[in-house]
Amino acid sequence: MDTILISHGNGGRETQHLLQQIIFSKVPEQLKQTIGGIGINYPDDGAVINLKGDKLIITTDSYTVNPIFFPGGDIGILAISGTINDLIMMGASPIAMLDSIVVSEGFLISDLEKILESMLSILKKYNIPLIGGDFKVMPSDSMKGIVINTVGIGITENPIIDIVMPEDKIIVTGPIGTHGAVIAAMQYGIQTSLKSDVKPLIPLLRIFNKYKDKIHAARDPTRGGLASTLNEWAQLAKKMIIIEESKVPILQEVKSITEITGLDPFVLANEGTAVLSVSPDIEKDIIKDLESLNFQPSTIGYVTEPKDWENKGIVITKTTIGGVKILEMPTGDIVPRIC
Amino acid sequence: MDTILISHGNGGRETQHLLQQIIFSKVPEQLKQTIGGIGINYPDDGAVINLKGDKLIITTDSYTVNPIFFPGGDIGILAISGTINDLIMMGASPIAMLDSIVVSEGFLISDLEKILESMLSILKKYNIPLIGGDFKVMPSDSMKGIVINTVGIGITENPIIDIVMPEDKIIVTGPIGTHGAVIAAMQYGIQTSLKSDVKPLIPLLRIFNKYKDKIHAARDPTRGGLASTLNEWAQLAKKMIIIEESKVPILQEVKSITEITGLDPFVLANEGTAVLSVSPDIEKDIIKDLESLNFQPSTIGYVTEPKDWENKGIVITKTTIGGVKILEMPTGDIVPRIC
Repeated sequence: MDTILISHGNGGRETQHLLQQIIFSKVPEQLKQTIGGIGINYPDDGAVINLKGDKLIITTDSYTVNPIFFPGGDIGILAISGTINDLIMMGASPIAMLDSIVVSEGFLISDLEKILESMLSILKKYNIPLIGGDFKVMPSDSMKGIVINTVGIGITENPIIDIVMPEDKIIVTGPIGTHGAVIAAMQYGIQTSLKSDVKPLIPLLRIFNKYKDKIHAARDPTRGGLASTLNEWAQLAKKMIIIEESKVPILQEVKSITEITGLDPFVLANEGTAVLSVSPDIEKDIIKDLESLNFQPSTIGYVTEPKDWENKGIVITKTTIGGVKILEMPTGDIVPRIC
Repeated sequence: MDTILISHGNGGRETQHLLQQIIFSKVPEQLKQTIGGIGINYPDDGAVINLKGDKLIITTDSYTVNPIFFPGGDIGILAISGTINDLIMMGASPIAMLDSIVVSEGFLISDLEKILESMLSILKKYNIPLIGGDFKVMPSDSMKGIVINTVGIGITENPIIDIVMPEDKIIVTGPIGTHGAVIAAMQYGIQTSLKSDVKPLIPLLRIFNKYKDKIHAARDPTRGGLASTLNEWAQLAKKMIIIEESKVPILQEVKSITEITGLDPFVLANEGTAVLSVSPDIEKDIIKDLESLNFQPSTIGYVTEPKDWENKGIVITKTTIGGVKILEMPTGDIVPRIC
């Protein structure tokens, strides 16, 4: 009998297959988006609704993390930042949020208060209203812990819909794999001074608005990491993406953790770091602008039109020792379980 | 040490108190709604966003029910109908939905497929696009079963914002307590031929559009039942609501179940039955219109302006034996656990 496996939640190949089987193949084409909008016909972080000229962006995500408090944040900061970031990566200004909390009987109210304070601190800082939500309690024999679902609503004139173009430069806004490495360290009991990169990427909006349609794709590579995002982009645009491994910034503490655990930093989650695919003529300017906003950006590769005999939709890494290998879509169990 | 109790999820007094303590008291007033909109400053089923003349209604809910398949429906039908109904009860036409599913390792994929087919059957019937979502897997040691979070987006020119007025008639669109009684029967092992009333209330939109601002309040009394909805309305408008117990329609099978279990049908959940507070001059017409749409409506009471020395914001029941009693906001554990 077929049952759900942990790997079905990896945000990689198994998740893609399962969702294709149980949902995407069964929703009629005309019900995959609103008229003139973008929905599940398209694998991006938010849906687009056209409404009398405004483009409304809606996104929803369920957050569960173990442990719920970690160096640099907690599940509340994660749930609010993650959903804000999904809006930002569509080029949208957040206008409102909703949250729905499912908590188990026996959960500490003081912990719940801390988590909510974390959530509210970000909403207050960026002046985003919390306009609704839900609250449910599950008995302790069917759940342990907390699941937070957040809904983000944003507006934009020009949604960034992630179509990479030949010659595009691939830029990351900072070192990768940090959030995943922190959670891995806690789960494996490894001592580290590392903190999660979790944060709302609202400052990036200024850059998106400045360069507009020169930014062809933008994503916060959470579950499944950089490997998942780059593979989705390559597949979607039927292009080849070439990454130079030596140019990908990874913190020394993250490297230590991945060496001990055998984890791949390209698959580890990021929660406050974005990857962009931009027109080559703005590369230098955007790097400068990102630096002025206190990001630590690096150009890590580029997009190319595959030749006739080459595979379309794949990601190639040039390794530090001079070879090349295919950067695969993540598969198998998520290690660590970051969500 | 204070921990979450099952009663914190009852949708009644304890839920109100906890949410007041951990959220409502901490969100600054200007962040409780968008400008010109309605949000958590107001206890209704959906939030209102004003957007260039359109009024957008957004609602989100997390669904969990035990058992997940029950006579008359399943958690999928519940999750889609419940969220559609929250939009309808605001007077809004659903324009899109999103769903976020959290499922435990070991869950049967065939069950997941059945649940998704249930969800899609309703979306197809009413032509509502599914524009986005999320999917997460939790390990079997931290969760058993499935939680479905749904987001509904609707539009309306005139949101129904639930301010009851003196002389209003209180109408229910059918017998009450049926869904809660079915779940109770299953949990207590009582044999019954009863089926849940779960269904989308989309046909009611026609009536809301016809009578517009003569309909002062509309709600599907889910968790906490009719007792919770009527108490919220009375408190909100600082009015008194008088209900004649003998006029409240309750199916014979529901009565049998409540007699055996000692449960109160006024507190049992409804998932396809609405309660309306309407101007007295349209009472007869609306009853006729509801009947023509195959509802089985009954006028069960009215709203009155409390006299100076009377309690504001309470609900009084005239009992079948000629007495009067206060219909309290539900308190204590939810029995049965319907969500």
